[in-house]
Amino acid sequence: MADDLRAPRLHVGTSLAVGATAALSSEQVNYLANVLRLGAGARVLAFNGRDGEYLAEIVAVGRKGLTLAPTRRTRAPEPAPDVDLLFAPLKHARLDYLAQKAVEMGAGRLRPVTTRRTQVARLNLERLEANAIEAAEQCGAVWTPAVSPLESLDKALGAWPAERWLVFCDEAAPAASPLESLGRARRNGGVAVLIGPEGGFDEAERGAILRLPQVLRVSLGPRVLRADTAAVAALALVQATLGDWSPARVAGAA
Amino acid sequence: MADDLRAPRLHVGTSLAVGATAALSSEQVNYLANVLRLGAGARVLAFNGRDGEYLAEIVAVGRKGLTLAPTRRTRAPEPAPDVDLLFAPLKHARLDYLAQKAVEMGAGRLRPVTTRRTQVARLNLERLEANAIEAAEQCGAVWTPAVSPLESLDKALGAWPAERWLVFCDEAAPAASPLESLGRARRNGGVAVLIGPEGGFDEAERGAILRLPQVLRVSLGPRVLRADTAAVAALALVQATLGDWSPARVAGAA
Repeated sequence: MADDLRAPRLHVGTSLAVGATAALSSEQVNYLANVLRLGAGARVLAFNGRDGEYLAEIVAVGRKGLTLAPTRRTRAPEPAPDVDLLFAPLKHARLDYLAQKAVEMGAGRLRPVTTRRTQVARLNLERLEANAIEAAEQCGAVWTPAVSPLESLDKALGAWPAERWLVFCDEAAPAASPLESLGRARRNGGVAVLIGPEGGFDEAERGAILRLPQVLRVSLGPRVLRADTAAVAALALVQATLGDWSPARVAGAA
Repeated sequence: MADDLRAPRLHVGTSLAVGATAALSSEQVNYLANVLRLGAGARVLAFNGRDGEYLAEIVAVGRKGLTLAPTRRTRAPEPAPDVDLLFAPLKHARLDYLAQKAVEMGAGRLRPVTTRRTQVARLNLERLEANAIEAAEQCGAVWTPAVSPLESLDKALGAWPAERWLVFCDEAAPAASPLESLGRARRNGGVAVLIGPEGGFDEAERGAILRLPQVLRVSLGPRVLRADTAAVAALALVQATLGDWSPARVAGAA
Protein backbone atom coordinates (compact mmCIF):
# COMPACT_ATOMS: atom_id res chain seq x y z
CA MET A 1 0.00 0.00 0.00
CA ALA A 2 2.73 2.46 0.94
CA ASP A 3 4.57 1.41 -2.22
CA ASP A 4 1.49 2.05 -4.34
CA LEU A 5 1.05 5.47 -2.83
CA ARG A 6 4.58 6.41 -3.76
CA ALA A 7 4.19 5.05 -7.29
CA PRO A 8 4.56 7.62 -10.09
CA ARG A 9 1.23 9.12 -11.04
CA LEU A 10 0.41 9.63 -14.71
CA HIS A 11 -2.40 11.21 -16.65
CA VAL A 12 -3.14 9.15 -19.77
CA GLY A 13 -5.20 9.98 -22.82
CA THR A 14 -6.76 6.54 -23.28
CA SER A 15 -9.50 4.62 -21.46
CA LEU A 16 -8.61 2.81 -18.25
CA ALA A 17 -10.11 -0.55 -17.26
CA VAL A 18 -8.84 -3.73 -15.62
CA GLY A 19 -8.03 -6.25 -18.36
CA ALA A 20 -7.37 -3.65 -21.05
CA THR A 21 -4.07 -1.97 -21.78
CA ALA A 22 -3.54 1.77 -21.77
CA ALA A 23 -1.12 3.47 -24.13
CA LEU A 24 1.54 5.91 -22.98
CA SER A 25 2.86 8.91 -24.85
CA SER A 26 6.46 8.77 -26.03
CA GLU A 27 7.30 11.42 -23.41
CA GLN A 28 5.83 9.21 -20.69
CA VAL A 29 7.72 6.15 -21.93
CA ASN A 30 10.93 8.17 -21.90
CA TYR A 31 10.16 9.51 -18.40
CA LEU A 32 9.43 6.07 -16.94
CA ALA A 33 12.29 4.26 -18.67
CA ASN A 34 15.06 6.83 -18.74
CA VAL A 35 14.34 9.25 -15.90
CA LEU A 36 12.78 6.95 -13.30
CA ARG A 37 14.52 3.85 -14.75
CA LEU A 38 11.41 1.74 -14.37
CA GLY A 39 10.76 -1.32 -16.51
CA ALA A 40 8.29 -4.16 -16.92
CA GLY A 41 6.58 -5.11 -13.67
CA ALA A 42 6.92 -1.72 -11.96
CA ARG A 43 3.73 -0.04 -10.86
CA VAL A 44 2.25 3.35 -11.52
CA LEU A 45 -1.00 5.10 -10.76
CA ALA A 46 -2.92 6.21 -13.86
CA PHE A 47 -5.94 8.45 -14.34
CA ASN A 48 -7.56 10.06 -17.33
CA GLY A 49 -10.23 12.36 -15.90
CA ARG A 50 -13.08 9.98 -16.77
CA ASP A 51 -12.53 6.48 -15.38
CA GLY A 52 -11.09 7.20 -11.94
CA GLU A 53 -7.59 6.13 -10.88
CA TYR A 54 -6.01 2.73 -11.45
CA LEU A 55 -3.00 0.94 -10.15
CA ALA A 56 -1.30 -0.33 -13.27
CA GLU A 57 1.68 -2.50 -14.12
CA ILE A 58 4.23 -1.47 -16.70
CA VAL A 59 4.37 -3.93 -19.61
CA ALA A 60 7.12 -3.98 -22.21
CA VAL A 61 6.08 -3.95 -25.86
CA GLY A 62 8.39 -4.24 -28.82
CA ARG A 63 12.03 -3.19 -28.54
CA LYS A 64 11.69 -0.03 -26.51
CA GLY A 65 7.99 0.52 -25.95
CA LEU A 66 6.06 0.42 -22.70
CA THR A 67 2.36 0.21 -22.04
CA LEU A 68 0.20 -0.03 -18.93
CA ALA A 69 -1.96 -2.89 -17.68
CA PRO A 70 -4.41 -1.61 -15.04
CA THR A 71 -4.77 -4.18 -12.25
CA ARG A 72 -7.08 -2.48 -9.75
CA ARG A 73 -9.19 0.64 -9.53
CA THR A 74 -7.90 2.72 -6.62
CA ARG A 75 -10.30 5.68 -6.84
CA ALA A 76 -13.72 6.33 -8.36
CA PRO A 77 -14.10 9.10 -10.93
CA GLU A 78 -14.82 12.59 -9.61
CA PRO A 79 -16.02 15.61 -11.53
CA ALA A 80 -13.60 18.52 -11.70
CA PRO A 81 -14.39 21.14 -9.03
CA ASP A 82 -16.84 23.69 -10.38
CA VAL A 83 -14.34 26.46 -9.68
CA ASP A 84 -12.99 28.53 -12.59
CA LEU A 85 -9.98 30.78 -12.51
CA LEU A 86 -10.05 33.73 -14.91
CA PHE A 87 -6.66 35.41 -15.20
CA ALA A 88 -4.68 37.61 -17.51
CA PRO A 89 -1.65 35.78 -18.94
CA LEU A 90 1.61 36.50 -17.13
CA LYS A 91 5.21 36.11 -18.21
CA HIS A 92 6.40 32.52 -18.70
CA ALA A 93 7.69 31.38 -15.32
CA ARG A 94 4.90 33.06 -13.38
CA LEU A 95 2.28 31.65 -15.72
CA ASP A 96 3.63 28.11 -15.29
CA TYR A 97 3.53 28.64 -11.57
CA LEU A 98 0.02 30.08 -11.64
CA ALA A 99 -1.34 27.11 -13.63
CA GLN A 100 0.25 24.60 -11.25
CA LYS A 101 -0.92 26.38 -8.11
CA ALA A 102 -4.45 26.90 -9.43
CA VAL A 103 -4.91 23.19 -10.07
CA GLU A 104 -3.45 22.25 -6.68
CA MET A 105 -5.95 24.66 -5.16
CA GLY A 106 -8.80 22.93 -7.02
CA ALA A 107 -9.51 25.20 -9.95
CA GLY A 108 -11.23 22.84 -12.38
CA ARG A 109 -11.08 25.22 -15.30
CA LEU A 110 -8.39 27.73 -16.28
CA ARG A 111 -9.73 30.59 -18.37
CA PRO A 112 -7.06 32.99 -19.64
CA VAL A 113 -8.54 36.38 -20.53
CA THR A 114 -7.10 39.42 -22.25
CA THR A 115 -7.68 42.77 -20.60
CA ARG A 116 -6.87 46.28 -21.73
CA ARG A 117 -3.67 46.25 -19.70
CA THR A 118 -2.70 42.64 -20.38
CA GLN A 119 1.03 42.65 -20.98
CA VAL A 120 1.21 39.25 -22.66
CA ALA A 121 -0.97 39.07 -25.76
CA ARG A 122 0.04 35.63 -26.99
CA LEU A 123 -0.35 32.48 -25.01
CA ASN A 124 1.10 29.00 -25.39
CA LEU A 125 -2.02 26.95 -24.64
CA GLU A 126 -0.19 23.62 -24.90
CA ARG A 127 2.29 24.71 -22.28
CA LEU A 128 -0.54 25.91 -20.04
CA GLU A 129 -2.30 22.55 -20.43
CA ALA A 130 0.91 20.61 -19.76
CA ASN A 131 1.47 22.53 -16.54
CA ALA A 132 -2.12 21.98 -15.45
CA ILE A 133 -1.93 18.23 -16.15
CA GLU A 134 1.40 17.92 -14.35
CA ALA A 135 -0.12 19.62 -11.32
CA ALA A 136 -3.09 17.24 -11.43
CA GLU A 137 -0.67 14.28 -11.48
CA GLN A 138 1.26 15.70 -8.56
CA CYS A 139 -1.59 16.86 -6.32
CA GLY A 140 -3.64 13.67 -6.57
CA ALA A 141 -6.56 15.00 -8.63
CA VAL A 142 -8.55 12.29 -10.44
CA TRP A 143 -10.11 14.91 -12.67
CA THR A 144 -8.49 16.62 -15.63
CA PRO A 145 -8.28 20.41 -15.43
CA ALA A 146 -9.86 22.13 -18.42
CA VAL A 147 -7.99 24.94 -20.15
CA SER A 148 -9.99 27.36 -22.26
CA PRO A 149 -8.61 29.26 -25.23
CA LEU A 150 -7.69 32.91 -24.68
CA GLU A 151 -10.76 35.15 -24.84
CA SER A 152 -11.39 38.79 -24.05
CA LEU A 153 -12.64 39.72 -20.61
CA ASP A 154 -15.45 41.71 -22.26
CA LYS A 155 -16.66 38.60 -24.06
CA ALA A 156 -16.45 36.47 -20.92
CA LEU A 157 -18.45 39.03 -18.95
CA GLY A 158 -20.99 39.42 -21.77
CA ALA A 159 -21.76 35.70 -21.73
CA TRP A 160 -21.64 35.29 -17.95
CA PRO A 161 -23.91 32.43 -16.77
CA ALA A 162 -26.72 33.47 -14.43
CA GLU A 163 -25.85 30.75 -11.92
CA ARG A 164 -22.10 31.35 -11.52
CA TRP A 165 -20.65 33.60 -8.84
CA LEU A 166 -17.78 35.82 -9.90
CA VAL A 167 -15.28 36.50 -7.12
CA PHE A 168 -13.61 39.75 -8.12
CA CYS A 169 -10.34 40.37 -6.28
CA ASP A 170 -10.46 44.15 -6.50
CA GLU A 171 -7.36 46.10 -5.46
CA ALA A 172 -9.53 49.22 -5.30
CA ALA A 173 -12.17 47.68 -3.01
CA PRO A 174 -12.57 49.37 0.36
CA ALA A 175 -11.09 47.39 3.25
CA ALA A 176 -13.55 44.62 4.10
CA SER A 177 -13.43 41.08 5.39
CA PRO A 178 -13.16 38.74 2.39
CA LEU A 179 -14.91 35.99 4.37
CA GLU A 180 -17.90 38.26 4.93
CA SER A 181 -17.94 39.17 1.23
CA LEU A 182 -17.86 35.49 0.22
CA GLY A 183 -20.50 34.69 2.82
CA ARG A 184 -23.02 36.60 0.72
CA ALA A 185 -23.00 33.79 -1.86
CA ARG A 186 -25.76 31.26 -1.66
CA ARG A 187 -24.52 27.77 -2.29
CA ASN A 188 -26.12 27.07 -5.69
CA GLY A 189 -24.18 27.40 -8.92
CA GLY A 190 -20.47 27.27 -9.53
CA VAL A 191 -17.94 29.93 -8.73
CA ALA A 192 -15.22 31.73 -10.66
CA VAL A 193 -12.30 33.74 -9.34
CA LEU A 194 -11.12 36.71 -11.42
CA ILE A 195 -7.55 37.93 -10.98
CA GLY A 196 -6.44 41.06 -12.78
CA PRO A 197 -3.30 41.72 -14.81
CA GLU A 198 -0.21 43.15 -13.10
CA GLY A 199 -1.26 46.67 -14.13
CA GLY A 200 -4.77 46.22 -12.75
CA PHE A 201 -8.07 46.59 -14.58
CA ASP A 202 -8.93 49.88 -16.21
CA GLU A 203 -11.95 51.85 -15.01
CA ALA A 204 -14.27 50.70 -17.81
CA GLU A 205 -13.44 47.07 -17.05
CA ARG A 206 -13.93 47.56 -13.33
CA GLY A 207 -17.32 49.11 -14.02
CA ALA A 208 -18.40 46.22 -16.25
CA ILE A 209 -17.30 43.68 -13.66
CA LEU A 210 -19.03 45.45 -10.80
CA ARG A 211 -22.29 45.70 -12.78
CA LEU A 212 -22.58 41.89 -12.97
CA PRO A 213 -25.25 40.80 -10.48
CA GLN A 214 -23.23 37.66 -9.73
CA VAL A 215 -20.18 39.57 -8.55
CA LEU A 216 -18.70 39.06 -5.09
CA ARG A 217 -16.22 41.89 -4.63
CA VAL A 218 -13.37 40.86 -2.37
CA SER A 219 -10.53 42.79 -0.76
CA LEU A 220 -7.33 40.80 -0.25
CA GLY A 221 -5.89 42.87 2.57
CA PRO A 222 -3.69 45.94 2.88
CA ARG A 223 -0.71 44.75 0.82
CA VAL A 224 -0.29 44.70 -2.96
CA LEU A 225 -0.31 41.05 -4.03
CA ARG A 226 1.23 39.77 -7.22
CA ALA A 227 -1.30 38.11 -9.52
CA ASP A 228 -0.07 34.58 -8.77
CA THR A 229 -0.16 35.18 -5.01
CA ALA A 230 -3.66 36.66 -5.23
CA ALA A 231 -4.86 33.61 -7.18
CA VAL A 232 -3.72 31.13 -4.52
CA ALA A 233 -5.00 33.31 -1.66
CA ALA A 234 -8.41 33.86 -3.28
CA LEU A 235 -8.78 30.18 -4.15
CA ALA A 236 -7.98 29.26 -0.53
CA LEU A 237 -10.75 31.55 0.73
CA VAL A 238 -13.20 30.34 -1.93
CA GLN A 239 -12.49 26.66 -1.22
CA ALA A 240 -12.81 27.29 2.53
CA THR A 241 -16.21 29.00 2.18
CA LEU A 242 -17.88 27.65 -0.98
CA GLY A 243 -15.71 24.82 -2.24
CA ASP A 244 -14.38 21.45 -1.16
CA TRP A 245 -12.70 22.75 2.04
CA SER A 246 -15.98 24.28 3.27
CA PRO A 247 -17.83 23.07 6.37
CA ALA A 248 -20.79 21.82 4.29
CA ARG A 249 -18.66 19.91 1.79
CA VAL A 250 -16.29 18.49 4.40
CA ALA A 251 -19.26 17.20 6.40
CA GLY A 252 -20.80 15.76 3.23
CA ALA A 253 -17.61 13.89 2.34
CA ALA A 254 -17.04 12.46 5.83
CA MET B 1 0.25 61.86 -6.48
CA ALA B 2 -0.09 59.19 -9.15
CA ASP B 3 3.56 59.78 -9.99
CA ASP B 4 4.59 59.32 -6.38
CA LEU B 5 2.64 56.07 -6.15
CA ARG B 6 4.46 54.71 -9.15
CA ALA B 7 7.86 55.81 -7.83
CA PRO B 8 10.37 53.02 -7.12
CA ARG B 9 10.11 51.81 -3.55
CA LEU B 10 13.31 51.13 -1.63
CA HIS B 11 14.16 49.68 1.75
CA VAL B 12 17.10 51.58 3.24
CA GLY B 13 19.30 50.75 6.18
CA THR B 14 19.64 54.27 7.55
CA SER B 15 17.31 56.59 9.43
CA LEU B 16 14.71 58.56 7.49
CA ALA B 17 13.66 62.10 8.34
CA VAL B 18 12.82 65.26 6.41
CA GLY B 19 15.92 67.46 6.28
CA ALA B 20 18.42 64.63 6.67
CA THR B 21 19.90 62.56 3.88
CA ALA B 22 19.67 58.78 3.68
CA ALA B 23 22.45 56.68 2.23
CA LEU B 24 21.88 54.07 -0.46
CA SER B 25 23.74 50.80 -0.93
CA SER B 26 25.95 50.49 -3.99
CA GLU B 27 23.42 47.97 -5.38
CA GLN B 28 20.64 50.52 -4.99
CA VAL B 29 22.70 53.26 -6.63
CA ASN B 30 23.40 50.92 -9.53
CA TYR B 31 19.73 49.94 -9.77
CA LEU B 32 18.49 53.54 -9.78
CA ALA B 33 21.17 54.91 -12.09
CA ASN B 34 21.78 52.05 -14.51
CA VAL B 35 18.61 49.96 -14.51
CA LEU B 36 15.93 52.59 -14.01
CA ARG B 37 18.15 55.39 -15.44
CA LEU B 38 17.09 57.84 -12.78
CA GLY B 39 19.24 60.75 -11.74
CA ALA B 40 19.18 63.82 -9.47
CA GLY B 41 15.69 65.15 -8.90
CA ALA B 42 13.83 61.90 -9.51
CA ARG B 43 11.65 60.65 -6.69
CA VAL B 44 11.49 57.39 -4.83
CA LEU B 45 9.61 56.05 -1.83
CA ALA B 46 11.88 54.90 0.99
CA PHE B 47 11.19 52.97 4.18
CA ASN B 48 13.38 51.32 6.76
CA GLY B 49 10.99 49.43 9.03
CA ARG B 50 11.24 52.04 11.82
CA ASP B 51 10.44 55.55 10.61
CA GLY B 52 7.54 54.94 8.23
CA GLU B 53 7.66 55.69 4.52
CA TYR B 54 9.03 58.88 2.92
CA LEU B 55 8.87 60.43 -0.46
CA ALA B 56 12.48 61.29 -1.22
CA GLU B 57 14.39 63.06 -3.94
CA ILE B 58 17.49 61.57 -5.50
CA VAL B 59 20.56 63.78 -4.93
CA ALA B 60 23.85 63.36 -6.75
CA VAL B 61 26.98 63.17 -4.62
CA GLY B 62 30.53 63.00 -5.94
CA ARG B 63 31.21 61.58 -9.39
CA LYS B 64 28.85 58.63 -9.46
CA GLY B 65 27.18 58.51 -6.08
CA LEU B 66 23.53 59.05 -5.26
CA THR B 67 21.82 59.68 -1.96
CA LEU B 68 18.26 60.40 -0.88
CA ALA B 69 16.73 63.54 0.58
CA PRO B 70 13.35 62.74 2.17
CA THR B 71 10.87 65.53 1.47
CA ARG B 72 7.63 64.30 3.05
CA ARG B 73 6.47 61.40 5.22
CA THR B 74 3.88 59.42 3.25
CA ARG B 75 3.06 56.73 5.84
CA ALA B 76 3.45 56.33 9.56
CA PRO B 77 5.49 53.42 10.94
CA GLU B 78 3.64 50.13 11.50
CA PRO B 79 4.82 47.13 13.47
CA ALA B 80 5.39 43.97 11.46
CA PRO B 81 2.36 41.67 11.59
CA ASP B 82 2.63 39.28 14.52
CA VAL B 83 2.43 36.32 12.14
CA ASP B 84 5.37 33.92 11.92
CA LEU B 85 5.96 31.37 9.21
CA LEU B 86 7.91 28.26 10.23
CA PHE B 87 9.01 26.24 7.22
CA ALA B 88 11.58 23.67 6.23
CA PRO B 89 14.02 25.06 3.65
CA LEU B 90 13.18 24.13 0.06
CA LYS B 91 15.32 24.04 -3.04
CA HIS B 92 16.52 27.46 -4.31
CA ALA B 93 13.81 28.71 -6.66
CA ARG B 94 10.97 27.51 -4.48
CA LEU B 95 12.56 29.00 -1.37
CA ASP B 96 12.92 32.38 -3.07
CA TYR B 97 9.31 32.15 -4.07
CA LEU B 98 8.19 31.10 -0.60
CA ALA B 99 9.98 34.02 1.06
CA GLN B 100 8.47 36.53 -1.36
CA LYS B 101 4.96 35.12 -1.07
CA ALA B 102 5.10 34.88 2.72
CA VAL B 103 5.95 38.57 3.07
CA GLU B 104 3.26 39.60 0.57
CA MET B 105 0.82 37.59 2.68
CA GLY B 106 1.92 39.44 5.80
CA ALA B 107 4.25 37.05 7.56
CA GLY B 108 6.29 39.39 9.74
CA ARG B 109 8.87 36.79 10.68
CA LEU B 110 10.33 33.95 8.62
CA ARG B 111 11.61 31.09 10.75
CA PRO B 112 13.36 28.34 8.79
CA VAL B 113 13.42 25.06 10.73
CA THR B 114 15.16 21.77 10.12
CA THR B 115 13.05 18.62 10.42
CA ARG B 116 14.02 14.97 10.26
CA ARG B 117 13.03 14.82 6.60
CA THR B 118 14.34 18.25 5.61
CA GLN B 119 16.02 17.79 2.26
CA VAL B 120 18.01 21.02 2.35
CA ALA B 121 20.32 21.21 5.34
CA ARG B 122 22.17 24.41 4.48
CA LEU B 123 20.50 27.73 4.02
CA ASN B 124 21.65 30.98 2.49
CA LEU B 125 20.26 33.41 5.07
CA GLU B 126 21.40 36.50 3.16
CA ARG B 127 19.52 35.36 0.09
CA LEU B 128 16.42 34.65 2.17
CA GLU B 129 16.62 38.14 3.69
CA ALA B 130 17.16 39.78 0.31
CA ASN B 131 14.06 38.05 -1.06
CA ALA B 132 12.02 39.06 1.96
CA ILE B 133 13.11 42.72 1.71
CA GLU B 134 12.43 42.78 -2.02
CA ALA B 135 8.93 41.50 -1.38
CA ALA B 136 8.39 44.17 1.29
CA GLU B 137 9.45 46.84 -1.22
CA GLN B 138 7.13 45.46 -3.84
CA CYS B 139 4.02 44.77 -1.73
CA GLY B 140 3.99 48.11 0.06
CA ALA B 141 4.92 46.97 3.56
CA VAL B 142 6.32 49.74 5.78
CA TRP B 143 7.72 47.12 8.15
CA THR B 144 10.84 45.04 7.65
CA PRO B 145 10.32 41.28 7.67
CA ALA B 146 12.50 39.50 10.23
CA VAL B 147 14.41 36.38 9.20
CA SER B 148 15.56 34.02 11.94
CA PRO B 149 18.59 31.77 11.69
CA LEU B 150 17.97 28.11 10.92
CA GLU B 151 16.98 26.18 14.07
CA SER B 152 15.66 22.70 14.69
CA LEU B 153 11.93 22.15 14.89
CA ASP B 154 12.43 20.36 18.21
CA LYS B 155 14.11 23.42 19.68
CA ALA B 156 11.42 25.75 18.36
CA LEU B 157 8.69 23.59 19.85
CA GLY B 158 10.55 23.24 23.15
CA ALA B 159 10.68 27.01 23.59
CA TRP B 160 7.18 27.70 22.29
CA PRO B 161 5.67 30.87 23.86
CA ALA B 162 2.52 30.30 25.90
CA GLU B 163 0.67 33.10 24.12
CA ARG B 164 1.34 32.15 20.48
CA TRP B 165 -1.00 29.96 18.44
CA LEU B 166 0.63 27.38 16.21
CA VAL B 167 -1.34 26.67 13.04
CA PHE B 168 -0.24 23.19 12.00
CA CYS B 169 -1.06 22.37 8.38
CA ASP B 170 -1.29 18.62 8.84
CA GLU B 171 -1.57 16.45 5.74
CA ALA B 172 -2.69 13.59 7.99
CA ALA B 173 -5.47 15.56 9.67
CA PRO B 174 -8.97 14.19 9.16
CA ALA B 175 -11.07 16.21 6.72
CA ALA B 176 -12.32 19.27 8.57
CA SER B 177 -13.13 22.87 7.79
CA PRO B 178 -9.96 24.94 8.26
CA LEU B 179 -12.07 28.00 9.11
CA GLU B 180 -13.73 26.09 11.95
CA SER B 181 -10.33 24.93 13.20
CA LEU B 182 -8.97 28.49 13.15
CA GLY B 183 -12.14 29.76 14.80
CA ARG B 184 -11.09 27.96 17.97
CA ALA B 185 -8.34 30.55 18.53
CA ARG B 186 -9.09 33.37 20.88
CA ARG B 187 -7.75 36.66 19.67
CA ASN B 188 -4.94 37.26 22.15
CA GLY B 189 -1.32 36.48 21.34
CA GLY B 190 0.35 36.18 17.99
CA VAL B 191 0.09 33.33 15.56
CA ALA B 192 2.54 31.11 13.70
CA VAL B 193 1.96 28.91 10.68
CA LEU B 194 3.97 25.69 10.41
CA ILE B 195 4.48 24.14 6.98
CA GLY B 196 6.19 20.77 6.72
CA PRO B 197 8.97 19.65 4.41
CA GLU B 198 8.13 18.01 1.07
CA GLY B 199 8.43 14.56 2.64
CA GLY B 200 6.13 15.48 5.52
CA PHE B 201 6.84 15.33 9.24
CA ASP B 202 7.79 12.03 10.81
CA GLU B 203 5.55 10.49 13.46
CA ALA B 204 7.63 11.66 16.43
CA GLU B 205 7.54 15.21 15.13
CA ARG B 206 3.81 15.09 14.48
CA GLY B 207 3.30 13.83 18.04
CA ALA B 208 5.39 16.64 19.53
CA ILE B 209 3.52 19.26 17.50
CA LEU B 210 0.10 17.90 18.41
CA ARG B 211 0.98 17.84 22.13
CA LEU B 212 1.47 21.63 22.17
CA PRO B 213 -1.57 23.18 23.85
CA GLN B 214 -1.33 26.15 21.48
CA VAL B 215 -1.76 24.02 18.36
CA LEU B 216 -4.54 24.64 15.85
CA ARG B 217 -4.53 21.61 13.56
CA VAL B 218 -5.74 22.50 10.11
CA SER B 219 -6.61 20.41 7.07
CA LEU B 220 -5.95 22.10 3.71
CA GLY B 221 -8.41 20.09 1.65
CA PRO B 222 -8.37 16.85 -0.33
CA ARG B 223 -5.40 17.57 -2.60
CA VAL B 224 -1.69 17.29 -1.85
CA LEU B 225 -0.28 20.82 -1.78
CA ARG B 226 3.33 21.69 -2.34
CA ALA B 227 4.92 23.44 0.62
CA ASP B 228 4.95 26.84 -1.05
CA THR B 229 1.29 26.55 -2.07
CA ALA B 230 0.32 25.44 1.42
CA ALA B 231 2.12 28.43 2.94
CA VAL B 232 0.19 30.98 0.85
CA ALA B 233 -3.13 29.17 1.35
CA ALA B 234 -2.66 28.86 5.11
CA LEU B 235 -1.56 32.48 5.46
CA ALA B 236 -4.66 33.58 3.52
CA LEU B 237 -6.91 31.70 5.94
CA VAL B 238 -4.99 32.96 8.99
CA GLN B 239 -5.08 36.58 7.81
CA ALA B 240 -8.79 36.28 7.02
CA THR B 241 -9.65 34.90 10.48
CA LEU B 242 -7.01 36.17 12.94
CA GLY B 243 -4.87 38.66 11.03
CA ASP B 244 -5.15 41.94 9.18
CA TRP B 245 -7.82 40.72 6.73
CA SER B 246 -10.13 39.64 9.56
CA PRO B 247 -13.50 41.28 10.29
CA ALA B 248 -12.28 42.66 13.65
CA ARG B 249 -9.08 44.14 12.24
CA VAL B 250 -10.71 45.50 9.08
CA ALA B 251 -13.36 47.22 11.20
CA GLY B 252 -10.66 48.59 13.51
CA ALA B 253 -8.68 50.03 10.60
CA ALA B 254 -11.67 51.61 8.87
